[in-house]
Amino acid sequence: MDSLPLMRELAIEAKTKILLVVLDGLGGLPLTPGGPTELEAAHTPNLDALAAGSICGLSTPVAPGITPGSGPGHLALFGYDPLQYEIGRGVLEALGIGFDLRRQDLAARGNFCSLDPATGVITDRRASRIPSEVGARLCQKLRAIQLPGVQAFVEPVKEYRFVLVLRGEGLVDGLTETDPQQTGVPPLPVTATRPEAQATAELLNRWLAEARRLLADEYPANGCNLRGIARDPGLPLMPEVYRLRCAAIATYPMYRGVARLAGMDVLPTGDTIEAEVETLRQHWDSYDFFFFHVKKTDSMGEDGNFEGKVAVIEYFDRLLPQMLGLAPDVVIVTGDHSTPALWKAHSWHELPVLLWARTIRPDHVRAFGERPCMAGGLGHIRHTDLMPLAMAYAGRLTKFGA
Amino acid sequence: MDSLPLMRELAIEAKTKILLVVLDGLGGLPLTPGGPTELEAAHTPNLDALAAGSICGLSTPVAPGITPGSGPGHLALFGYDPLQYEIGRGVLEALGIGFDLRRQDLAARGNFCSLDPATGVITDRRASRIPSEVGARLCQKLRAIQLPGVQAFVEPVKEYRFVLVLRGEGLVDGLTETDPQQTGVPPLPVTATRPEAQATAELLNRWLAEARRLLADEYPANGCNLRGIARDPGLPLMPEVYRLRCAAIATYPMYRGVARLAGMDVLPTGDTIEAEVETLRQHWDSYDFFFFHVKKTDSMGEDGNFEGKVAVIEYFDRLLPQMLGLAPDVVIVTGDHSTPALWKAHSWHELPVLLWARTIRPDHVRAFGERPCMAGGLGHIRHTDLMPLAMAYAGRLTKFGA
Repeated sequence: MDSLPLMRELAIEAKTKILLVVLDGLGGLPLTPGGPTELEAAHTPNLDALAAGSICGLSTPVAPGITPGSGPGHLALFGYDPLQYEIGRGVLEALGIGFDLRRQDLAARGNFCSLDPATGVITDRRASRIPSEVGARLCQKLRAIQLPGVQAFVEPVKEYRFVLVLRGEGLVDGLTETDPQQTGVPPLPVTATRPEAQATAELLNRWLAEARRLLADEYPANGCNLRGIARDPGLPLMPEVYRLRCAAIATYPMYRGVARLAGMDVLPTGDTIEAEVETLRQHWDSYDFFFFHVKKTDSMGEDGNFEGKVAVIEYFDRLLPQMLGLAPDVVIVTGDHSTPALWKAHSWHELPVLLWARTIRPDHVRAFGERPCMAGGLGHIRHTDLMPLAMAYAGRLTKFGA
Repeated sequence: MDSLPLMRELAIEAKTKILLVVLDGLGGLPLTPGGPTELEAAHTPNLDALAAGSICGLSTPVAPGITPGSGPGHLALFGYDPLQYEIGRGVLEALGIGFDLRRQDLAARGNFCSLDPATGVITDRRASRIPSEVGARLCQKLRAIQLPGVQAFVEPVKEYRFVLVLRGEGLVDGLTETDPQQTGVPPLPVTATRPEAQATAELLNRWLAEARRLLADEYPANGCNLRGIARDPGLPLMPEVYRLRCAAIATYPMYRGVARLAGMDVLPTGDTIEAEVETLRQHWDSYDFFFFHVKKTDSMGEDGNFEGKVAVIEYFDRLLPQMLGLAPDVVIVTGDHSTPALWKAHSWHELPVLLWARTIRPDHVRAFGERPCMAGGLGHIRHTDLMPLAMAYAGRLTKFGA
């Protein structure tokens, strides 16, 4: 259910502050059956004390069984139904490298690939995973391509991956990808899925023809594909929907980018959680809502580093009292999705969540962990439920109906 | 929510196997307040051991308070929202007697009824519940009816009930029933609810006029009504949606029929649970998904036989280790709906459900029963959540969004 229209209707201003802490990839799994998860194994006296005064539960990011990417996971935390509001892959990729994407820009993820010089069919969709240095040099080469009335930015990401951003008037999305997702066939042309996008499709095909000419001698990276060609989705903006002055504190570009798409002010901060806490302190008086993002829980999970993830959680726990010392009115601690170290990847498992406020109904949860949260007073909820709950506990929603 | 489009988008192939065990009508009620349900009363060491290593919960087949028929209950288990995907009563009745229904056939449930010979109004909607032998003889008589360009099958079901199937070109559904659901009025004509069905309505009315002529001397069964006139709903097929090779093992025709409508291969099997287990063993290597149906739990519930239902559950429990010995990757045990012996009928009560896989988050449930499952880690879910969860735990879903 899309709760944004209801929020827009019921939101009122107040002097309260909401702190949403996202420990990326927080949810975990036991390494051995019956053992503790990462969060359960971590020594977290401060989170446990907070949980004891909170209402806890488990939350599903998108839908049961669905493993979300970072985009949908965060959109859901901000109250956007991720099945309804979608950020294109090209846009996320551009945000991920900190590209200053503007509202009208068109962004695509690019993949260098290997083409059979004689037949033009794809022989390797990832161009033998060329080193990042080679990718950067090829991007530099592609920057020479000129398009009429449109600026084309080509930015390296990593290895065979790059971002193409077109900037100019009249760019329209609704465009198919060129990657046929298999070898032995040539790249597809970009086609328009709606008539208005026809001219943009032609521009991209022109760019692709030029790119292929420039890359001809660069085997194994003698071709490229464009995926997820998309524009800023034009999300309803959080300050307008919730009447909150919203700030984002995150160290990684992608999360900063998603927050910006949602209308938050993205605060300059450092690379560490301490730096983020200091940023929070400095800007405490200027905002009503803070999205506070901790990245390394997810990175450790992706690396399969159970102990590393435990250590990041414990590190965060030691800094928590400083954050609580700022006296937020509502605190939520959860993650965007699970990244069990056992799994070395995002997963669909529910997220432990705690919601602290002065007027909660206490439950019996005395420690913050997946199993204690199973029996928590929040029950099993959806990520999209969190913002309405936070708004309510912050005294920022008026009554619905007479 | 209809999760089939998402499943179709995210499903990937893998070498894992999913076993869905449906103990029909599993959910029960205590005979006396505070007493055990049928499942709780049963001695089930194997189910309990499986539950201890599983994540458990309670599941609602359709919606809170809604008592499902066998069709909606099973559709939901297979991932089809039963409020969106419907199998007509005529189709279910035809499947229930094992009629080899084809995709273009039109099927109706027929009821012999008593008409006042003078006025033609219905005096008994069930024709004094004539014996099955009489019903069979009357069906034989009705087979004489000829329709232009269309074959008409008339098959007895039980007592006053029969099935009419029309087979031929251009049969269109969207047809009203003839049963006015009261006595003292004549049967209604079949009418088309959309213009394309007009010709089919006329065919059926012609058949009904002939039938009434042939039955004129057969009081109390001197008339008949047609209900639930419908075609195969053309469900999205499970092998296409989930990319699973799907097999059904069930002893009763209706469940075999519903499975076939969903695109499963229906395996030949015997009349006992042992025979079904042997069928499972024989075909284990050839399929990725098995729907394993146990009927007698429901039959005992319908009969009000609490001890009989307990005995069927215990019987199944003894065979469970043979099934687990095949080393499925995901096991779900639940039912399509509750059939408490106390109630002697289907009911709306939630179903206990256990989901076993290697990467579950364990909960505190140590016995498989309605009350332990209330506190299980799955919480309260919907039947339609089960297939997405099974797919996720089987490693058969890719990530949603970037």
